[in-house]
Amino acid sequence: MNQQYRRVRVFAPASVGNVGPGFDTLGMAITGPGDTVEAEWCDEPGIHIADITGDGGRLPRKAADNTCGIAAAEVLKLAGEETAGVSLILHKGVPGTGLGSSAASAVAGAWAVNALLGERFAKEELLPACVAGEQHVSGGVFLDNLAAALYGGVVACHTTMNRAWRVGTLEDLQVVVVTPQTQGLTRDSRGRLSDGVPLKGFVHNMAAACAMVAAVARGDAATFGRAIDDRVVEPQRAGLIRGFAKVKDAALEAGALGCSISGAGASVFAVTDDAGRTEAIAHAMAGAFARAGASATVTLARIDADGARTLPDGARIPE
Amino acid sequence: MNQQYRRVRVFAPASVGNVGPGFDTLGMAITGPGDTVEAEWCDEPGIHIADITGDGGRLPRKAADNTCGIAAAEVLKLAGEETAGVSLILHKGVPGTGLGSSAASAVAGAWAVNALLGERFAKEELLPACVAGEQHVSGGVFLDNLAAALYGGVVACHTTMNRAWRVGTLEDLQVVVVTPQTQGLTRDSRGRLSDGVPLKGFVHNMAAACAMVAAVARGDAATFGRAIDDRVVEPQRAGLIRGFAKVKDAALEAGALGCSISGAGASVFAVTDDAGRTEAIAHAMAGAFARAGASATVTLARIDADGARTLPDGARIPE
Repeated sequence: MNQQYRRVRVFAPASVGNVGPGFDTLGMAITGPGDTVEAEWCDEPGIHIADITGDGGRLPRKAADNTCGIAAAEVLKLAGEETAGVSLILHKGVPGTGLGSSAASAVAGAWAVNALLGERFAKEELLPACVAGEQHVSGGVFLDNLAAALYGGVVACHTTMNRAWRVGTLEDLQVVVVTPQTQGLTRDSRGRLSDGVPLKGFVHNMAAACAMVAAVARGDAATFGRAIDDRVVEPQRAGLIRGFAKVKDAALEAGALGCSISGAGASVFAVTDDAGRTEAIAHAMAGAFARAGASATVTLARIDADGARTLPDGARIPE
Repeated sequence: MNQQYRRVRVFAPASVGNVGPGFDTLGMAITGPGDTVEAEWCDEPGIHIADITGDGGRLPRKAADNTCGIAAAEVLKLAGEETAGVSLILHKGVPGTGLGSSAASAVAGAWAVNALLGERFAKEELLPACVAGEQHVSGGVFLDNLAAALYGGVVACHTTMNRAWRVGTLEDLQVVVVTPQTQGLTRDSRGRLSDGVPLKGFVHNMAAACAMVAAVARGDAATFGRAIDDRVVEPQRAGLIRGFAKVKDAALEAGALGCSISGAGASVFAVTDDAGRTEAIAHAMAGAFARAGASATVTLARIDADGARTLPDGARIPE
């Protein structure tokens, strides 16, 4: 067996899914929050979750029921190492809902095993393993948060082709995320979407999403931000997040280029290319949530350009 | 008056509009066919169309009714030169329908006046003038063919923002266009579209269009071609083009990466990244049209990377 490392620590970032108009299509990894996994080889075959911290006891400890454990097991299978055993400790570090929490866990689990294997697989090869983990939780194939957490930067996803691409990153983009202390589940939120999209909304959102991809490719943070304008899904979901309309107004009045729901909510994100405005935008958004009766966690971030990574701090111990 | 040149000859290429999934969003200029305009200053104020060739007498000769004349007049206005006079000869060189014929005329008209003015305006500044010309014919604002003819390469258009961006070009992409000898009008074709787009189709087309933009940015001709898969508009328009389904099947069987309707039809385009296959693809497509009872013009092209341009062959005569 090609066991390159005895023990590793890896990280996968939180992410904004469904970025603006790009429902199920655009994802963006953010700096700061994310999941960390400590992994080591063990004698008992299969994946074992030794501990989970930071989840308040909510997540299943059985590896076969856990998005992180499922993704890790898929990578062992991919490597033809089903008889090997790996023990994982998962440290949850993604606040609330709407920031790709389960995707970060799946990606961290997959990357942990890959790191133990000496990074045998390229990131593209690991996407299906991450999908398997995420699917268990969300009940469908949604690539946006997974690809963002895995590849880093801004990603474009094409579920029909089962592929995703890292478009690039925007170094100057500031991302303000405000996460209210409420629950919101992807499954419920998706069930509320109308099956009929007006032709105008279809063209608007597609054009805006393409403009955002083109803007990332050109390094144009201002256009990326101004194109965050979802006329199809956001109007249907806005009512699920108490205070959303006022939070968005507050962000735009404070100078944000664009503001929308992160993933299926309840997190709300805004962007600016002016670092001097981020605190005012965050203050305005948190204030609007407070006036709506919701306390909220604020994350001041930028785009995480790297995605899943092995942490260097002494955790890699060659055999 | 800053009249840089006495007489110029300019060219604007034909283009594929609504490229694949990117209805009203993606455009692509092609090498070969296009409109040429000869322009010179004249004493009588305003735009005058001295002649039009290649249109079989179908286009209006009055400048105020002609897409080329209207766009040219808008550039005179933009320059604050309304009292100047310009005489135009328009040589139509775009076959049939679906290849941005009116857009090429509008762009060539706008660029002709700009060339007489010593290319005073950047291309981005001329887009509104081109829109004014095209609008007269098509009855709406459609940027895809205009931006492609003006900027060249592959363009992403955002009508709500009234902006368009040149994403880049794909040097290895071969474009086969087959134009049947039938008539098809943008207005009629648009009127037949359903206003309700299924959510799945919306996501599919948006993801595919974003994948195409990302592919151009990465120089990935194969993904660009494979993502040409329109599940929203093409199924509704396919029946308007006699033989379309068989033409598409023939293109794909002959090795094309993707095939769809160009613009609102009746032209059909296919792409490949294998130059050795273009003739077989063209032969297969033209054969399928012939079996459906339509004779067709075949254009073997690549992406025109430059868009509108002043022709260098002695036509530029400094004052």
